[in-house]
Amino acid sequence: MSAPVQTLGILGGGQLGRMLAMAAARLGIKAHIYAPESNSPAAHVAAGFTCAAYNDLAALKAFAQSVDVVTTEFENVPAGTCDILANHIPVRPHARALEIAQDRVAEKSFLNERGIATAPWRAVATAPELDAALKALGTPSILKTRRLGYDGKGQVRITAAKDAAGALAAIKAAPAVLEGFVDFEREISVIVARGTDGAIACYDPGENDHEDGILRRTTVPAAISEATRKSALEIARKIVRTLDYVGVMGVEMFVASDGKLLVNEIAPRVHNTGHWTLEGCAISQFEQHVRAVCGWPLGSTARHADAVMTNLLGSEADDWQALAAKDQAVHLYGKGEARPGRKMGHVTVLSAKA
Amino acid sequence: MSAPVQTLGILGGGQLGRMLAMAAARLGIKAHIYAPESNSPAAHVAAGFTCAAYNDLAALKAFAQSVDVVTTEFENVPAGTCDILANHIPVRPHARALEIAQDRVAEKSFLNERGIATAPWRAVATAPELDAALKALGTPSILKTRRLGYDGKGQVRITAAKDAAGALAAIKAAPAVLEGFVDFEREISVIVARGTDGAIACYDPGENDHEDGILRRTTVPAAISEATRKSALEIARKIVRTLDYVGVMGVEMFVASDGKLLVNEIAPRVHNTGHWTLEGCAISQFEQHVRAVCGWPLGSTARHADAVMTNLLGSEADDWQALAAKDQAVHLYGKGEARPGRKMGHVTVLSAKA
Repeated sequence: MSAPVQTLGILGGGQLGRMLAMAAARLGIKAHIYAPESNSPAAHVAAGFTCAAYNDLAALKAFAQSVDVVTTEFENVPAGTCDILANHIPVRPHARALEIAQDRVAEKSFLNERGIATAPWRAVATAPELDAALKALGTPSILKTRRLGYDGKGQVRITAAKDAAGALAAIKAAPAVLEGFVDFEREISVIVARGTDGAIACYDPGENDHEDGILRRTTVPAAISEATRKSALEIARKIVRTLDYVGVMGVEMFVASDGKLLVNEIAPRVHNTGHWTLEGCAISQFEQHVRAVCGWPLGSTARHADAVMTNLLGSEADDWQALAAKDQAVHLYGKGEARPGRKMGHVTVLSAKA
Repeated sequence: MSAPVQTLGILGGGQLGRMLAMAAARLGIKAHIYAPESNSPAAHVAAGFTCAAYNDLAALKAFAQSVDVVTTEFENVPAGTCDILANHIPVRPHARALEIAQDRVAEKSFLNERGIATAPWRAVATAPELDAALKALGTPSILKTRRLGYDGKGQVRITAAKDAAGALAAIKAAPAVLEGFVDFEREISVIVARGTDGAIACYDPGENDHEDGILRRTTVPAAISEATRKSALEIARKIVRTLDYVGVMGVEMFVASDGKLLVNEIAPRVHNTGHWTLEGCAISQFEQHVRAVCGWPLGSTARHADAVMTNLLGSEADDWQALAAKDQAVHLYGKGEARPGRKMGHVTVLSAKA
């Protein structure tokens, strides 16, 4: 008996695809990257690389024929791309999971319909709808584009009803949701995995700090009660189970001041807040995702240390010598240009479990 | 300031080169593999691959021009190859270290001249020399070819003087050394690293079990006294210091029944007995080697767990599903043919530090 998955296709060529490709290699599985950018960091560690647009039918078909299963490093894969690939080979996670995560209305509706709490929200596409939503939810509140937001992009805070027109202009009147104010103590995330056999495994929740809308730091364990921890894991399990999901998912949650958990966002992929697992666990989130989508048994999510993962943004990675001289693991993503706010690498400090 | 080493050249395309290439990628460094075998597992995770013979002058020159520094995954690089490369770029470790490790006479002479004990030995090239050596060292003893021995190949045990002729025939009368019997309790190895700045760092010694001359298992920590542990680290430090060595080296030692340490072999590269560091430490031996040869500060060698690493030989890796279902890290090397005794992968079990 030998591994049925010889080659894993990965849509997307950034740092997540790069770390997925390395995790696949640990398991003796070749990675084939598909991405439109010729200078894709993931391609540097992959056995194969197709540089083509996501709507290039011929390239997609050839890609499907050269790999055994396809996964993605990001949720904003055009729906048509997945459909074409899924005609030939398994795409994991499935297109429906990507579609839900692509659209804040679909995402929040999916969650609420399953009894999972979110911040109060209203879909808004016009100025009158925004006015109505502001009346219902009050201020402060946050206007977010339904699609393609990340790292704080496509969001604007509304502190008074009179700012509505400006906010709508700031997001170029794109279809949006208005989210009501949540008095939260902290944001946590659960990295959850589900295998093709339906087995589910969660890593310990981490606690996230953002700066300017961009994740700066994840600390594990999160400073939450055991009851909150259990609830968080149960929510994550419920999401992947009811979605018949296969792969790793990042589930961001707010811990409200009354202890209630509100899901902020689901990411149907490996997640920045799970990078600490590279050193904190024997099986990282990247290997776990590869195991899941390739039909392997899930690995242990046991954590052998406490961990603090800090992103290196923009030029922060330039001083690699000072970073490397400290007692921490340094990861650099091999990206070309260090634009401000761009994730260029991360560092992880381990310490004995408290 | 950005990393001066953008691309690391690696001579050799096996599993050690593969794990070195992945470690380089963690640090944002591209790997370029040079190996004669077209189906080189290391090439699957490298940004560049030159498939050419080690004496191909044109290919070597082009390789030297496309990388910033060169290292090797094995010690038996032809001396001329290193000389050609060293004319263009730094080769780390240096050719002299490889030469010493290539030849058991050079290796044992180097060690003994620096006051480091080995098993008693004699160089033998002829039947009369072997007879004389057997008289001096007695039986049982082991005849080993001076060059190109590995995994128990090129070795034959002599239990009585009358077996001398047969032993010499078994190694095809190659230049050899006769090693006298050592009454040892265990074999340990120290994975030591030295940086370009002269800094030295050692991982905790592991204890090795062999089967049929091939490493089967390394257990960390080794069951040795603190005094023996300190002596072992001091010997390893002395070797890399006096050799002005840069990179990771594996130093195999016998622990004699009287507690004395005898160096068995030095390997000027990352070492099978150091694979446990991939999960047992935040910085693995592979990253440590990349850091050293690329002029980075060495990383921490702190060990956060006890570990047992077991090699998967021949067809043992075929049953990957059962291996993956256990609470252990699984590494498969992506090699094609599972010949008996061939190292196809390894597994590592972590446990809380005793």
